[in-house]
Amino acid sequence: MTKIVGIIGGMGPLASVDLQRKIIENTVADEDQDHLHVITDCNSQIPDRTAAILHGGKDPLPEMINSAKRLEQAGAQVLVMACNTAHFYLEQMRPAVSIPFLSMIEAAIEEAKRQDAKRVVIFSTTATQEKGLYELRCQKEGMEVLALSEEEKELMMRIIYAMKAGVMDHGIEEAKALLERKRQEGADVFFTACTELAIYFQEDDFVGPFVDPTEALARKVVRYAGGKLKPLTP
Amino acid sequence: MTKIVGIIGGMGPLASVDLQRKIIENTVADEDQDHLHVITDCNSQIPDRTAAILHGGKDPLPEMINSAKRLEQAGAQVLVMACNTAHFYLEQMRPAVSIPFLSMIEAAIEEAKRQDAKRVVIFSTTATQEKGLYELRCQKEGMEVLALSEEEKELMMRIIYAMKAGVMDHGIEEAKALLERKRQEGADVFFTACTELAIYFQEDDFVGPFVDPTEALARKVVRYAGGKLKPLTP
Repeated sequence: MTKIVGIIGGMGPLASVDLQRKIIENTVADEDQDHLHVITDCNSQIPDRTAAILHGGKDPLPEMINSAKRLEQAGAQVLVMACNTAHFYLEQMRPAVSIPFLSMIEAAIEEAKRQDAKRVVIFSTTATQEKGLYELRCQKEGMEVLALSEEEKELMMRIIYAMKAGVMDHGIEEAKALLERKRQEGADVFFTACTELAIYFQEDDFVGPFVDPTEALARKVVRYAGGKLKPLTP
Repeated sequence: MTKIVGIIGGMGPLASVDLQRKIIENTVADEDQDHLHVITDCNSQIPDRTAAILHGGKDPLPEMINSAKRLEQAGAQVLVMACNTAHFYLEQMRPAVSIPFLSMIEAAIEEAKRQDAKRVVIFSTTATQEKGLYELRCQKEGMEVLALSEEEKELMMRIIYAMKAGVMDHGIEEAKALLERKRQEGADVFFTACTELAIYFQEDDFVGPFVDPTEALARKVVRYAGGKLKPLTP
């Protein structure tokens, strides 16, 4: 018997679609019934996480907890969130429900370890960066984290908010130049540690190597919920 | 105040992802919070609709009603289904909930009328075809429905079940030849009246003109639920 998966989404909406698609694509299925049962609450009323964490914006936690409870009530047996920055609130959310809550960040770190990452770059919101959501865990695992300049961080934020407004190709040349600079500094893994950036960097012809936390979480979900996990393509 | 939308999905899973994406893409939004709140029950345990309608397979209606009730309970204020064939059961589902249930088929017919369709082809499951889910409504609107041969219907079923098993490019050359034959017979609109076929025909370089019921429903949902609808690109 497989577990029913609950996705807290809407942060942004495309990110929850992306996570669902990656769960489907990582499941071996001959017919509809081989897929996992997934309930998604694409709750667009959750306030902006970065604005809250860095600039005193409206607290998103109550609405995130509403979504978590709504999904548990609807039958979800395990929860995930399609937003890296939102993981700042993960430990405050866990006590609000009585079902397990898988971390996208843990899934991504596990994948980076599997790839034997040594010098990593973290592309994320400034909130994820400033709170060290990835950095501290990477360092704990012995990975060196290459710093981004203020301009490079700001480029990521411009891309993220362009994506949220439906512009999918903001700053492509700048982003490619940034990847190249960091590879020359010895980066061996780039975390696309914002769900919008994970979508952005899988388009076009960007060269990584990337660790996509959405993909890593999708695979962890399939395994955890008892779906048949597709083997990794070499 | 916008309405919370509930999607009964999992028929197949990619179709519910496609509908969610089209709702997002048809909404004018500068930030996450401008999007609709959408709860999706991707219920992979709903039995195969075509098998039930044509071959005495397990009845999907009870599980579809479970999903409808689950979504209403979770707060949905309007329901839709991401499966054309499932609309065979629509009138039996409506009394099970106390919220409105929009029809994908009605949305598609409205779009065909807007395009002034006169001679149409309906690509669908054989169950949708045999039950006349589209044909009867098209004829009522004065559209002529061009018949498909047994081989042509069977090609559609092969494509649909290949899609459900993750094969996205089955029979492309045959499908292109079919489109060309029908255009020569005077077809002015092709309904991609199975959610898998709507995904299939939007890939590659297929030439229509198509009416995609998933897209038509997405636009109807945005309008109905009070989102800001994107203007059609000419």
